[in-house]
This record gives sequence, C-alpha cells and structure tokens, in this order.
Amino acid sequence: MPTQQTITVDLDERSYPIIIGRGLLGGGFDLGAHIVGSDCLIVSNETVAPLYLEALKANLHGRSIETIDLPDGEAWKTLETVQTIIDKLADTGSNRDTTVIALGGGVVGDIAGFAAACYMRGVAFIQIPTTLLAQVDSSVGGKTGVNHAQGKNLIGAFHQPRVVLIDTDTLATLPDRELHAGLAEVIKYGAIADQAFFAWLEQNMSALLDRQPDALACAVQRSCEIKAAVVADDEREAGRRVILNFGHTFGHAIEHCQGYGEWLHGEAVATGMVMAAELGDLDSTEVARLRALIAAAGLPTAPPAVGAKRLLKAMELDKKVQQKQLRLVLLRTLGDACVTGDYDQPRLLRALEAAD
Amino acid sequence: MPTQQTITVDLDERSYPIIIGRGLLGGGFDLGAHIVGSDCLIVSNETVAPLYLEALKANLHGRSIETIDLPDGEAWKTLETVQTIIDKLADTGSNRDTTVIALGGGVVGDIAGFAAACYMRGVAFIQIPTTLLAQVDSSVGGKTGVNHAQGKNLIGAFHQPRVVLIDTDTLATLPDRELHAGLAEVIKYGAIADQAFFAWLEQNMSALLDRQPDALACAVQRSCEIKAAVVADDEREAGRRVILNFGHTFGHAIEHCQGYGEWLHGEAVATGMVMAAELGDLDSTEVARLRALIAAAGLPTAPPAVGAKRLLKAMELDKKVQQKQLRLVLLRTLGDACVTGDYDQPRLLRALEAAD
Repeated sequence: MPTQQTITVDLDERSYPIIIGRGLLGGGFDLGAHIVGSDCLIVSNETVAPLYLEALKANLHGRSIETIDLPDGEAWKTLETVQTIIDKLADTGSNRDTTVIALGGGVVGDIAGFAAACYMRGVAFIQIPTTLLAQVDSSVGGKTGVNHAQGKNLIGAFHQPRVVLIDTDTLATLPDRELHAGLAEVIKYGAIADQAFFAWLEQNMSALLDRQPDALACAVQRSCEIKAAVVADDEREAGRRVILNFGHTFGHAIEHCQGYGEWLHGEAVATGMVMAAELGDLDSTEVARLRALIAAAGLPTAPPAVGAKRLLKAMELDKKVQQKQLRLVLLRTLGDACVTGDYDQPRLLRALEAAD
Repeated sequence: MPTQQTITVDLDERSYPIIIGRGLLGGGFDLGAHIVGSDCLIVSNETVAPLYLEALKANLHGRSIETIDLPDGEAWKTLETVQTIIDKLADTGSNRDTTVIALGGGVVGDIAGFAAACYMRGVAFIQIPTTLLAQVDSSVGGKTGVNHAQGKNLIGAFHQPRVVLIDTDTLATLPDRELHAGLAEVIKYGAIADQAFFAWLEQNMSALLDRQPDALACAVQRSCEIKAAVVADDEREAGRRVILNFGHTFGHAIEHCQGYGEWLHGEAVATGMVMAAELGDLDSTEVARLRALIAAAGLPTAPPAVGAKRLLKAMELDKKVQQKQLRLVLLRTLGDACVTGDYDQPRLLRALEAAD
C-alpha cells in the first residue's frame, strides 16, 4: 500500500477527505467506497483521458460507467459545455444516485462540478485532479462554475465534492508550463498564510521544478492544509475565504482581457500577485522576494499589453465589489493577507500602467 | 396599514418570512428593508409586468432598478432563458450586492431564482408570486430550476429567497384556468398533511372559485404554513419533503409527454393526484372525495391520451428514483402521505392505461 496523507475539509455534514499519495489511481485507493449509487459519469478531456481513464475505470470495476471527454482548455469553460454534460446525464437516464467524477485539471473540475451541482439540483461529485493547479487549489473547497463573455467564473455554484483524490504520480506527465502555473497557487499559500512555507518554497523551488516526488508531495500537502482550513472557516466566502483570491482580481482581469486560454490561469495569477504586492504593506525586500520566487517558478511577473483602462474595467466586475467599491486582497507581510477597499488609488492605477 | 400575516420558514441563517396580505405591492409593505445592496433586477413576464411592475418599482424608490420581461409560459423555462437573465446581470455590471426579484408566477420564479443561484455563485433573491400556484407552492422552499428536453426541472438549485411577498390582491387579475391550477396545489396540502383543511376546502370551494378574499387568504396561509413546516424539516429533500411531490411524478410525466405549456402544471398535478390516489391505502370513499374536490376546482381527473408506455418512461427519469426503483408519494389516508417504492406494479400499470 503506498503512503497516503489524508486531510479533512471540515464542513459538518458536507465534510470530506482529501487523499494525497502516489499510485492511488492505479488501485492504491478504494474509490468505490466513496460512491453511493451504482452509476458514474466520468468527465475528462481529450488530453487526460488517454493517460488515466482506463486506470480509473479499472478502479471502479463493477459499476455502470459512462464517460464524456471535453475539449481541452479554458476557452471551453462555458455554459454550453455544461449543457453537454447535463445532456449526457439526462440521455443516459441518470438520477440522484449518480456520481459525477472529474478527472483532469481545473477546467474539467469546475465544469463537471457545476454540472453535478445543477443536475437534479445536485448529485454526488468526486474530484480527481491531475494538474498541480487543480491539486493544490481548484479541486478543494467546492467552487464550481464557468466563464461568461463578461467575466471569469461569473456563473457557478458552491458544491462540495465527496472526496478529492490526488495521485501525485499524475504530475509526471504534466507539461512544464502547467507545472509552473500550478506553482503560482502554491506560492500564493505561502504569501497569504504561512511565512515558513514561503521560505521553504524559496529553498526548494529547484527540487519542485525537477519534479522530485517528495518535494511535490510536501507542496501539495501544505497547500491543501491551508486551503482546507480557510474553507472550513468560511465555506461560502462571506469573509476570510476571500484571501484565497490574492492576485486573482488582477489575474482574472488579465485572462478576460486577453481572451481565455491565452495565458494559463496560474500565469495570470502570478502576475496579479506581483501587482497586488505593490499595493500592500510589504517593504521593498518582501516585494522583491515574492517577485523573485514567482520568476524562479518560471512565471511572468508583468502583465501583457492589454491596456490599463481595459484591465481596470474588467476588475470592476469582480465578485468582491461591494457598494460599488472594488476590494482587493493585499499583504500586510509575507504570510499575512487581508481584504480591503482602503488602498491607494493612484498606486493601483500605476500598477495597472504596466499593461499599457 | 392592511392586515398582514407572517409565516417564518425556519432554516437557521437562511430563515425568511412569507408575508401574506392585501395591497402589499402598492406600498403596504416596505420591501426596501429586505434589500441589502442598492441594485435590483426585477424579472417578470410580458403578462404580469404591465399589471404590477410600476407599483413594485414605486415601492423600491431610490434604488437602481433594471428589469427584464420574459415571454410567458412553461415552454420558456429553459437554460437559454436563464442565460438571458445572466447576460443582463453581467452586461449591467451587477455584482454580489444585487438582488434579483421575481415578479410573476411559478415559471418566472423558478427561472429567476436559478439565475440568482448561479450568478456569481449566488446573489440575493426575492419572490413576489402573482399566481395562486406560485403563492402556495413554488415561491416557498428554495427550489429553482428549468426544464430539459428529457424532463421537467432536471436542471436547478436550492436557493432560498430572502423574503416571499404575497399580495393576494394580485389574484383578482388571474385567469380562471390559472386559479384552478393553483387550487390543485392547495388541495395537495390537505391531502398530504391536514384532513381538517381538506374538509374546509370541500366546504369552501365555491367561495374560492368566487375569489372571496377571506377564503383565498385562508387557503394561501394554511398552504404556506404546511409548506414552511415541511421545508424547515428537510430543506434539501433528503426525506419527508418528498411528500410535497404528491401527484407530481405522474404530473411531470404528463407535462413532459404532452410538451410543456399544453396543460398547466397544476392541471397535470391534479390528474396525477387522482392517479396516485388509486395506488395508496385510501378506501373508495376517500378516493371519490379527492376526485370530487379536484373536479369541483375545475381541474381534470384523467390524463390526456399520451400513451401509458411513454408516461411510464418519463416517470422513470424522476428525481425520486433510487437504486433503479421508482418511488411514489402515496396516501395512507386523506391528510397523511408517505413515500414508498413498495406499491403494486400491476395497479400502477392499470392507472397509466388511462393515458392510452
């Protein structure tokens, strides 16, 4: 039996485990025990399915399994794609006994999770994230949804999975660019919540880029611990959970202005973190450390030339706007974040000018 | 100040009041106190808006108000219509401060509620039902959603309103056929939960059909009390709430086979109740009383000729199917319902033959 770590997301009757380990997909974990009914729909995509779908199906031996492979990429994260999954569920006569299983990265998880949330007002859902970004961030916490022409993740639901199964062996097949994008969210956790983890990342970035299994497992585990704690404290993002969006207001606006799929989500968030860092209370050494760590992870630290005005307009449709006031997640110090509407407007505009 | 009744739907932090009275829309109730932010989107339809939209807008004086009028009818209860509401929200730069207000019947409430559930993963929502059916049933309890080509309400969410405002004066403009359809759900409450109310309905059906305000207010109030108690007990329909679907498995199948909008929902449910009554433990006198009350309300007691086989197939995609077993809500006696998979299959098939 391979080594496994279990982290619990503590949400009363919606609590669930995150299982982290190697070789889990190939039979190292009895997924069947987490499936209520007899029917499953596995949602994957054209890139991931050829690599891992057969192993997963073998693991679900004896169940009635339907599959749907989506096209790959953020550009497909739309309501139309959700509709195709719902059509599949309805056409195969699925009912509330069905479990929807997302096998893939963040886009697959977000779309499949939203379909599971909506079909018959909610069926069981399991996350099997195969990218670093999905393993450390999007598969945990129940945020599901799709993009709208006007903005990222504008349509969605909170729908918690029954289990998150993280087989870190899947990171072996991840393209470098996707690995780097996932590291953006890993760095985020250090920046917002754990100074020691941030320092550990500075020490171990080359081991992570070399995909050393122990280093990756450690990064995934600490990231999931931080996310699980924040989500347990504030499931529906009424307060503290907002800090998980550090860099995301800028990042989402970059993705939106550029067209979804141009930059990866993690790349946009990385740049967004650098822009946000300049608005917080960090001293120049801390800003430089954050920028250096992001650069060391192979990530961009300056926005693409989409125009400052367009970027600001896109930011104004952010979900954190309250009473017409755009709020931002800013750092007090490395390892400590807050959300505030009280920031220096000229400094924001200067930060945005990097996009001109 | 007009007389008002308040019933609370007790759901911890999601609790909300149902306000029932006359003249509420015209200023008899301060709706503004229930609206968190400054922006509202009123969703109505081409039939209801000309009657009540201006009064409602006057009641919301001082707020930023957008409106969208949908086409009228069940045939428009689709994901595409939800998308048009979400487009409106996004195009007007709405954020989580926005309140979506449904002004109309059950179709408007179901669609608007689902849009409110999905936009930014949930914004505030208020129900102002203007049909009897919506006042006694669909506006209370947080079920929102739309139809799918394969079945009724297959896509949706649980999303509780902040307040349900029932101005019984709006029933004055309701077409007879819609009034009758609403009475189907009123009769349902007597049949499943309150024998004395059932007897009261037998005594007062002609007063209700004459639209005597006191009789209507009484019927609305008792119906909402029963629904509020059942929903408070089982918000997500994990158990007892299923009894509110008495007649609905047959009814939804009728609507589906006939094409949405042919029969009204209440008409299909009325017929469904008669079909279900024949499968339960009622004696023949009780079955006759239920049939007679439904007929007295101007409602059909036999299904349209859509074919027994098609009807059965449509029933099998019901949300109450568990482990491939169709469960039905049946009556033990008038005023007492249960949900069971243990019913007589030949009797079910005989009941369905009425559709051949």
